[in-house]
Amino acid sequence: MNWDSGYFLEKGKKLYPEFHETVCRPLPETEPDKELWMRCGSSFTLDFGTHLVGYVTLKVACDHAPDSPLQAVFEFAEDRCEFDPAPYKGGLSSSWIQRETVFSDNALEPLSLPRRYAFRYLRITFPANTAYQVRYVSCEARAVTSADMSAVAPLPEGTSEAVRKIDEIAIRTLKNCMQSVFEDGPKRDRRLWLGDLYLQAKANYLTFKNTDLVKRCLYLFAGIPHENGCLSSAIFQEPILMNQSWILHDYALFFAGCLKDLYEFEGDREVVRELWPVAFRQAEIASEAVNEKGLVDPAYYFVDWCAPLDKTAAAQGIAVAMLKDTLFLAKVAGDAKAQAYLEAQIERLSGALMSLYDRERKLFAAPGGQISVQSQMWGILAGVLDETEVKDTLTALGKLTAADGLVDTVTPYAKHYYVDALLKGGFRKEAEKLIMDYWGGMAEKGADCFWEVYVPDQPDLSPYGDKRINSFCHAWSCTPTYFIRKYGIK
Amino acid sequence: MNWDSGYFLEKGKKLYPEFHETVCRPLPETEPDKELWMRCGSSFTLDFGTHLVGYVTLKVACDHAPDSPLQAVFEFAEDRCEFDPAPYKGGLSSSWIQRETVFSDNALEPLSLPRRYAFRYLRITFPANTAYQVRYVSCEARAVTSADMSAVAPLPEGTSEAVRKIDEIAIRTLKNCMQSVFEDGPKRDRRLWLGDLYLQAKANYLTFKNTDLVKRCLYLFAGIPHENGCLSSAIFQEPILMNQSWILHDYALFFAGCLKDLYEFEGDREVVRELWPVAFRQAEIASEAVNEKGLVDPAYYFVDWCAPLDKTAAAQGIAVAMLKDTLFLAKVAGDAKAQAYLEAQIERLSGALMSLYDRERKLFAAPGGQISVQSQMWGILAGVLDETEVKDTLTALGKLTAADGLVDTVTPYAKHYYVDALLKGGFRKEAEKLIMDYWGGMAEKGADCFWEVYVPDQPDLSPYGDKRINSFCHAWSCTPTYFIRKYGIK
Repeated sequence: MNWDSGYFLEKGKKLYPEFHETVCRPLPETEPDKELWMRCGSSFTLDFGTHLVGYVTLKVACDHAPDSPLQAVFEFAEDRCEFDPAPYKGGLSSSWIQRETVFSDNALEPLSLPRRYAFRYLRITFPANTAYQVRYVSCEARAVTSADMSAVAPLPEGTSEAVRKIDEIAIRTLKNCMQSVFEDGPKRDRRLWLGDLYLQAKANYLTFKNTDLVKRCLYLFAGIPHENGCLSSAIFQEPILMNQSWILHDYALFFAGCLKDLYEFEGDREVVRELWPVAFRQAEIASEAVNEKGLVDPAYYFVDWCAPLDKTAAAQGIAVAMLKDTLFLAKVAGDAKAQAYLEAQIERLSGALMSLYDRERKLFAAPGGQISVQSQMWGILAGVLDETEVKDTLTALGKLTAADGLVDTVTPYAKHYYVDALLKGGFRKEAEKLIMDYWGGMAEKGADCFWEVYVPDQPDLSPYGDKRINSFCHAWSCTPTYFIRKYGIK
Repeated sequence: MNWDSGYFLEKGKKLYPEFHETVCRPLPETEPDKELWMRCGSSFTLDFGTHLVGYVTLKVACDHAPDSPLQAVFEFAEDRCEFDPAPYKGGLSSSWIQRETVFSDNALEPLSLPRRYAFRYLRITFPANTAYQVRYVSCEARAVTSADMSAVAPLPEGTSEAVRKIDEIAIRTLKNCMQSVFEDGPKRDRRLWLGDLYLQAKANYLTFKNTDLVKRCLYLFAGIPHENGCLSSAIFQEPILMNQSWILHDYALFFAGCLKDLYEFEGDREVVRELWPVAFRQAEIASEAVNEKGLVDPAYYFVDWCAPLDKTAAAQGIAVAMLKDTLFLAKVAGDAKAQAYLEAQIERLSGALMSLYDRERKLFAAPGGQISVQSQMWGILAGVLDETEVKDTLTALGKLTAADGLVDTVTPYAKHYYVDALLKGGFRKEAEKLIMDYWGGMAEKGADCFWEVYVPDQPDLSPYGDKRINSFCHAWSCTPTYFIRKYGIK
């Protein structure tokens, strides 16, 4: 590792963002009758009208001097499904469930919860058999974000309501994930993941334009790499900054993609110069981890949550695409030696990727023959096909269905790259349809923010064994605003 | 109301005490193995060796980066019976139950609970299915009290172990109730009750000698009377100082008793001069509330928790005793007019009390004929009998049992006055036996502090319908140290 991680860490810490706060109140029609005295099991559910991330304060009045503590249970939900009382059966820790039981020694004092929650709905219950009764006075949420809504340009005239709606939800998703770093989801994990950051930063340049927050995240990643210089797939934030042990080469390689995007947006050569050794090291690590055929090991690649997927071709496509972004940075950094190394690696890995391309069927196939959307999209984004081949591939892909054994994308994250591949291949109509069907489908189902998981015909799908632990505001699903604004979708 | 309650309130607030803190650790043999990794339902119970009142901090270590919040359930218990998992069926609010479910967003940080608890035992459970495991590092309690242990004189040589033990428990009871006011019980209520204060102050003069705290409480009571000048039976403390609506004439009258005790201990005539109008008003109110026979209305008197008790004679005794204390204060204050008024009232009420004295049986009887310990003890403490009659009454009482229809005392509070009456009547042996049997009985049953409720043959008795909500460290039970030290019991 040939860089000063302590310096990067300090630089990342110094870029701690300013926060924007908004006071949010529940929809009046969901507030309990303010004349209603409650006690012992009384419960009501507030709807704040839209998803928010922040802090809550409840005020109640008492019918006489409160002679015992007030017990209040707060259940926060991004989606109403989280109120399902069935026992939790998920694999992720139940401690993510946003349910607090609070005792206030003075019921007359505003009850402010110290932790941050992500929610639209809030159910409040008073379980204790107190001698006094309480009535609801107010509940206020202090929503927080480091995104500046005033920086977002209005959509052009003539933009359809449907597109406006999707854009609005996408922006809210991004905004609510923008905290002291770009979080993956504000309800759960709350971690800075490199794969999510890569997409969030893209959407951010076309909306909030907060380049400092992107830089902060890049410097933090550069500041706490693994021993061999490989970047963490994710890092934990304050109060104890630390990296996640899980190694993902695609995520590590996205560091270069993210740095390239930042440079293209802002033109700050100094940042590239400083972070260049970090970006290059990821390319070296990924290049060194190929087999004798020049193929990467898919076990080190995330690609998508899709159990049946053979990731080989898609992972190979990611590696090639990101090696190319790294080459771009080598040129900006003026590192001729690295440039030569990268060109050789790109050639070798591209050749291996093309060995998976079935020139007759015009499709990338995994070594065992599996055809997937993921393989096609990353094969295209790797830029190893000529223009005609791209079109042929997308056309061939468009004719396949699950009945043909086609493996489809599962996450909005993977769907992003498919839309990107369609747009790069000139299939704009198909790309727009995919956005309107997929993200528009969530909007039609009442989403305030775009979800971590959405497979239209599997509404209860969860990678964690319990839908209630899914994130309903998830960073990697925020990119429709990027497409809408970059391509002028109306 | 002829006094400036605002002035008294300010004076009471200014007497906010200094606190003494002690760091307490659990008995090492009750700490879990520090090598033991725990998760998902793991539980252990710490024993801090003795009852304490204070704040708790738990430290755990994690086997790897904690990737989700830590959920910890803290169950505090003064007595092990509080761990009984049966559903709570008590009448008092369940929000007094000392059970907290806490989520820490950073499991590596010491987990400090913000509320104060009264406990000896602490069960900690980690219910969540976290991916990481935790191991116990330490649990520390910061015990708080406004009592200064260094002010307590050692008992004289030759004092028996049994007496020392009772004295120690009584002092701990008082100490743990001494916070920003004299609380009735640090687990539940935590209120300044006038009846409890009266006894606490007596024990305090012979132990901690914190006269400022007594003054603070008297000034606070004087600062928030009811509209007619009647003092509250109890007041709530910070952050919102307010009085309790319940009117108890015995408690209001104890203001004079408490002020007299303070003057006798300290000789501060200025305090008596200032608070004299308050004390006198209570005597007026009690005197005005008598019927045509000169008898008080027992509905305004607490006396004891004893459902079958006809309180008439006991209430009358309390009124007379306290009118006499008020007369004492009138003399100190030099209020001749009040003196004359009080002498007349004492004569009238004493006459009515004597009308309840059966001169043949040498016993006080309630109007319906009921004979109770409470009636005898307060009849004696009222000072309406001559020395021979007192002895005769105590002798006659000593021969009665429940089989004769005798109603006995229920609370340690009432038991105090019985011991006092025995000592005043020269029945020292019987008084000592009562202390050793009754408070000593609690000690033998493992009490760290003396209990709110103790009836030897009814171990599960609760005035609230559930023993677990009883207070196991209760102010009004602290007086053995008063008797031991005042009468040199060895």
